[in-house]
Amino acid sequence: MSNSFGKIFTITTFGESHGPAIGGVIDGCPSGIELDFDAIQKDMDRRKPGQSKIVTQRKEPDEVKFLSGIFEGKTTGASIGFIIENVHQRSNDYSHIKDSYRPSHADYTYDKKYGNRDYRGGGRTSARETANWVVGGAIAKQAIPSIKINAFTSSVGDIFMEKPYQDIDFDKIESNIVRCPDEASAEKMIQRINEIKKQGDTIGGTVTCVIQNVPVGLGEPIFDKLHAQLGKAMLSINAVKGFEYGSGFCGAKMKGSEHNDIFNGDGSTKTNLSGGIQGGISNGMDIYFRVAFKPVATIMQAQQTIDKDGNVVEMHGKGRHDPCVVPRAVPIVEALAAMVLTDFMILNK
Amino acid sequence: MSNSFGKIFTITTFGESHGPAIGGVIDGCPSGIELDFDAIQKDMDRRKPGQSKIVTQRKEPDEVKFLSGIFEGKTTGASIGFIIENVHQRSNDYSHIKDSYRPSHADYTYDKKYGNRDYRGGGRTSARETANWVVGGAIAKQAIPSIKINAFTSSVGDIFMEKPYQDIDFDKIESNIVRCPDEASAEKMIQRINEIKKQGDTIGGTVTCVIQNVPVGLGEPIFDKLHAQLGKAMLSINAVKGFEYGSGFCGAKMKGSEHNDIFNGDGSTKTNLSGGIQGGISNGMDIYFRVAFKPVATIMQAQQTIDKDGNVVEMHGKGRHDPCVVPRAVPIVEALAAMVLTDFMILNK
Amino acid sequence: MSNSFGKIFTITTFGESHGPAIGGVIDGCPSGIELDFDAIQKDMDRRKPGQSKIVTQRKEPDEVKFLSGIFEGKTTGASIGFIIENVHQRSNDYSHIKDSYRPSHADYTYDKKYGNRDYRGGGRTSARETANWVVGGAIAKQAIPSIKINAFTSSVGDIFMEKPYQDIDFDKIESNIVRCPDEASAEKMIQRINEIKKQGDTIGGTVTCVIQNVPVGLGEPIFDKLHAQLGKAMLSINAVKGFEYGSGFCGAKMKGSEHNDIFNGDGSTKTNLSGGIQGGISNGMDIYFRVAFKPVATIMQAQQTIDKDGNVVEMHGKGRHDPCVVPRAVPIVEALAAMVLTDFMILNK
Amino acid sequence: MSNSFGKIFTITTFGESHGPAIGGVIDGCPSGIELDFDAIQKDMDRRKPGQSKIVTQRKEPDEVKFLSGIFEGKTTGASIGFIIENVHQRSNDYSHIKDSYRPSHADYTYDKKYGNRDYRGGGRTSARETANWVVGGAIAKQAIPSIKINAFTSSVGDIFMEKPYQDIDFDKIESNIVRCPDEASAEKMIQRINEIKKQGDTIGGTVTCVIQNVPVGLGEPIFDKLHAQLGKAMLSINAVKGFEYGSGFCGAKMKGSEHNDIFNGDGSTKTNLSGGIQGGISNGMDIYFRVAFKPVATIMQAQQTIDKDGNVVEMHGKGRHDPCVVPRAVPIVEALAAMVLTDFMILNK
Repeated sequence: MSNSFGKIFTITTFGESHGPAIGGVIDGCPSGIELDFDAIQKDMDRRKPGQSKIVTQRKEPDEVKFLSGIFEGKTTGASIGFIIENVHQRSNDYSHIKDSYRPSHADYTYDKKYGNRDYRGGGRTSARETANWVVGGAIAKQAIPSIKINAFTSSVGDIFMEKPYQDIDFDKIESNIVRCPDEASAEKMIQRINEIKKQGDTIGGTVTCVIQNVPVGLGEPIFDKLHAQLGKAMLSINAVKGFEYGSGFCGAKMKGSEHNDIFNGDGSTKTNLSGGIQGGISNGMDIYFRVAFKPVATIMQAQQTIDKDGNVVEMHGKGRHDPCVVPRAVPIVEALAAMVLTDFMILNK
Repeated sequence: MSNSFGKIFTITTFGESHGPAIGGVIDGCPSGIELDFDAIQKDMDRRKPGQSKIVTQRKEPDEVKFLSGIFEGKTTGASIGFIIENVHQRSNDYSHIKDSYRPSHADYTYDKKYGNRDYRGGGRTSARETANWVVGGAIAKQAIPSIKINAFTSSVGDIFMEKPYQDIDFDKIESNIVRCPDEASAEKMIQRINEIKKQGDTIGGTVTCVIQNVPVGLGEPIFDKLHAQLGKAMLSINAVKGFEYGSGFCGAKMKGSEHNDIFNGDGSTKTNLSGGIQGGISNGMDIYFRVAFKPVATIMQAQQTIDKDGNVVEMHGKGRHDPCVVPRAVPIVEALAAMVLTDFMILNK
Repeated sequence: MSNSFGKIFTITTFGESHGPAIGGVIDGCPSGIELDFDAIQKDMDRRKPGQSKIVTQRKEPDEVKFLSGIFEGKTTGASIGFIIENVHQRSNDYSHIKDSYRPSHADYTYDKKYGNRDYRGGGRTSARETANWVVGGAIAKQAIPSIKINAFTSSVGDIFMEKPYQDIDFDKIESNIVRCPDEASAEKMIQRINEIKKQGDTIGGTVTCVIQNVPVGLGEPIFDKLHAQLGKAMLSINAVKGFEYGSGFCGAKMKGSEHNDIFNGDGSTKTNLSGGIQGGISNGMDIYFRVAFKPVATIMQAQQTIDKDGNVVEMHGKGRHDPCVVPRAVPIVEALAAMVLTDFMILNK
Repeated sequence: MSNSFGKIFTITTFGESHGPAIGGVIDGCPSGIELDFDAIQKDMDRRKPGQSKIVTQRKEPDEVKFLSGIFEGKTTGASIGFIIENVHQRSNDYSHIKDSYRPSHADYTYDKKYGNRDYRGGGRTSARETANWVVGGAIAKQAIPSIKINAFTSSVGDIFMEKPYQDIDFDKIESNIVRCPDEASAEKMIQRINEIKKQGDTIGGTVTCVIQNVPVGLGEPIFDKLHAQLGKAMLSINAVKGFEYGSGFCGAKMKGSEHNDIFNGDGSTKTNLSGGIQGGISNGMDIYFRVAFKPVATIMQAQQTIDKDGNVVEMHGKGRHDPCVVPRAVPIVEALAAMVLTDFMILNK
């Protein structure tokens, strides 16, 4: 069931970029949650294409149609089916990839694995799929209202937000189009993306996510550790190349005497290099992690590639694409984190 | 089933550091594999304590007793049960943690989650569990003999092996006790660990793993991507704080025009920043990834901590511990990678 | 994931009787299957309401809209999303059960378990759900074209088709509205249902299913035995009270010397009391099983029941209901059997 | 994971009849349960061979060695590993089946599916496996002490216990060796088994199970219905050919007006043809079901069969076998029911 995620609170998805609709089934959502549909649409709008000048100009309303599992505005505990129609597809933009493989896309691997593939817009491999996850995440957030999940852009290319997350105001994440809560960094990032876009190029970046107000005890031993499940979720996002939590790769350079988090009398810790998780189980401190996104593979420059018969051909990016995926990835990271946390909250009941 | 891993080729484990034995059940192993038991023991020996001066001095033979699933030396397709006896436990070393929580260990979170816990040697949270995985991995390797999996120590603290993996000889991994195939780096790493050990301190590091001769097409869409499953596996290892594959976090600083892997006529690529995986599916190039390990939390220095009642107490590390976990982690990384690959190979039949 | 079924070939469903649509996601379907959409609709028509005088008169076209996973008429290996719109619901028929529980329905248990429930038409507990399964089954049949699956009505009340299945012509199943391939029995059954309907009552019955041309080796040991998975599937159908395969409950009266199936030289057996399965694994002989359906709980007679507050009230069946569920259950039994077989065929590759 | 059962409370097993030991891993058991080890052994003794004159004379102490998951007599929430040594195997008894297939056993299907098989005593297909389940069930019972589970022999061949379960005293189940709580029926059953044994033949029978004091709300919609999961569990037992609950196959002959269970004011029902489950969810009434066992395939008479090359050969039963499996099946049925109930109780928390 490779199109499903989660153990109790689960999402199962379908849909291609240029089909009639994408959608999914959310199973295991507790009954009796009064849904705030505006909040769901708001998260959809944060992810949707065409929202600003630094993202793809494909226009999709991304309105969610719920088909089941909700009665008189409240969840019933039954599976929640939903669809999101594809409105603004332009399949003609993709005739050039029918028989050729875009470099660093999944065209080649899907063709070899499946033979028959919907090449238009990348078909099933399109990041359009992530709209389904935002639906699941938006509902998950409402299932665990006490837990606060905030993701933001922490770097674009070599421009890093230098402040620690403790010094920033999460309310400012949405105050700029790159979703970096530090204004000075945000400006530089936007400028950098604009430059890159003019070059017909793309650029990578990172998203940091902070989860607060987590009860002690979430996560299961050995193979369902809280951070392992978060990591798997994040590594499922298109273009992600790395995941670290707490001290992460920096922690690998440290000494134990520097790295250990000393307890306060109430069980909280003076430092939090553990990232809120010890032995795979939340300890009540903030959980934080960082996700690395590679630059988008579709560039508006000529590239050499091959066709199905192995002939070398030249290809030039067409269609409407993101110069940097990170601003739109912020709500996706939050959505997946919300689903992971909800799943463990239900298991931990 | 948080003590199970895998979809078709699965391992389910049990055991505490100071109980009579640890062990597990390997399910879904194909029938008819003629097992090389020496090769299994060899991997066990690479992980076992007491193997060199830079690891913990607990002595365990770590001999595997197979109880089922093997007939006349060959697998039968039935589940393979096995146990590894705990021979050299010294539970008295742990009386000091019965009522106190070691900093940056899982004592606190397990106590809050479960109430009743086997505190001796960390109980279920002990890295002794990883011996079980090495059994599973050693069998998995024999199920996919054509695929080559080599892990090695790529950094200890701030000492990095600078050479790219393409320039090294994997046969040299076992030629030194730190398991770094570059002799010059290895020497420095060993020296560093010795210094740290004398200080009663510990140090982190990274393991790099390279998987070669992988067929095109391993991995499943959306939530069972090959790298997501590898990432989840690695994040299950004790002390791991991060995972990156291919260009990893460095890729997040790059431009698309730099990062894209251009195809050769045969479907191979000129560069391999993708790390052998595109869209979650292997493309036939080398898969490589890096895993970050924090410094071991038990240090031979006095640390402040709390007891069960929240009183501040002083604690001093006792028992026999690793100053750096990385040399012994090398076969563990290989083992988990082997199980992930075998699972996908069976799914892909 | 209680709305999902299957291990590799899976279906995940959603939808209530009186919502806008029902539907689901089929995951794990192999790529490259050229779908016969007429065959799918034909199975839908066999299940749909209003098809004859002896079934409910609700009229539903039950047209399936496929939203993904199919490209140029062939499966792509991506998840197949589909919906079936609810056209002919009459929710007003259900106002009487808003606050009262219908006897031997799931109103009471759902209300106690979930609190908030869509009572209209039984909501999620409606057998309308089974239309989703017929979609999954119709695709599954096309994934395993060599295997022949035929279900039929083998009893209605105390009228039993007396002939063994070997003596009947499966092509005659669809020649009458009760789906019993023995004409004489069929006539009696139809007459019985008509009598019962006039009484405002309902009647139970059994469906027998025969699966032919099954390769040796389907089914997995211990907990995924072929017949256990078939049994679980059948017991998931609304109104089912029992499942038996091969000799079934009659076998419990027999002696070993009577019951054992003696081998022929080619591995086939002279008798087939085993029902084509030994040790949970198909042996190449015909698989056959029988499913018991209770009478539909909604009767057009006054019944005493209770409301939410425990007050005794009188209730009279309303709406459009089946006097006997068995004729419409035939394609449902086939559909679930087809999904189980397909799942094991893929596992057995 | 075909050797695993359950969703949260799970058991994963291994072991062959003539290997050194069988065993398993119980995962998901709540922490803090003070285990009564005598009660566990008592259930083992009810299943074990050699316990009376009407069962197989193989002598096995069937002592369980727990290896993990228990600390100071109480469960810790960690996975519970256990083994049961095989003491009294006589592998020589099986040399005659090395190259020939016993009729109505799984020798043929396992050989075709796996190629390499441990033929001694049936290897993995031996009912010795069920000893593992009794361990899991005995622990499960202690996890849900308020729920009462009683199984008993309800028929042997054509001798049926005629009384309804409401009229019998469950305390009398263990008062005779056939485990039928009605003394008069028990005597006839024992006599029947003795006759059959003298003939060198075997006989089938049924076990009925009654589960009392079940809270309302256990079971999950659609594919994890309580009775579907019970049915799957029972159909996993060696020799089982059928499962029915509540009115079962008799219900298929009834009219709705006869079959419906009318509510009392407190939500209980006047009759209980539903068998305590409506829409797959427990309604608080007694759950009861019946399981059909075929006669044991190994008979002490000459039978014709084939060898691996398809040659017809004569075979005569050897070894120590049960003339009727039903008396020893009683604790097995209870064990599986206990595990199913515990799993749903945890899910329902």
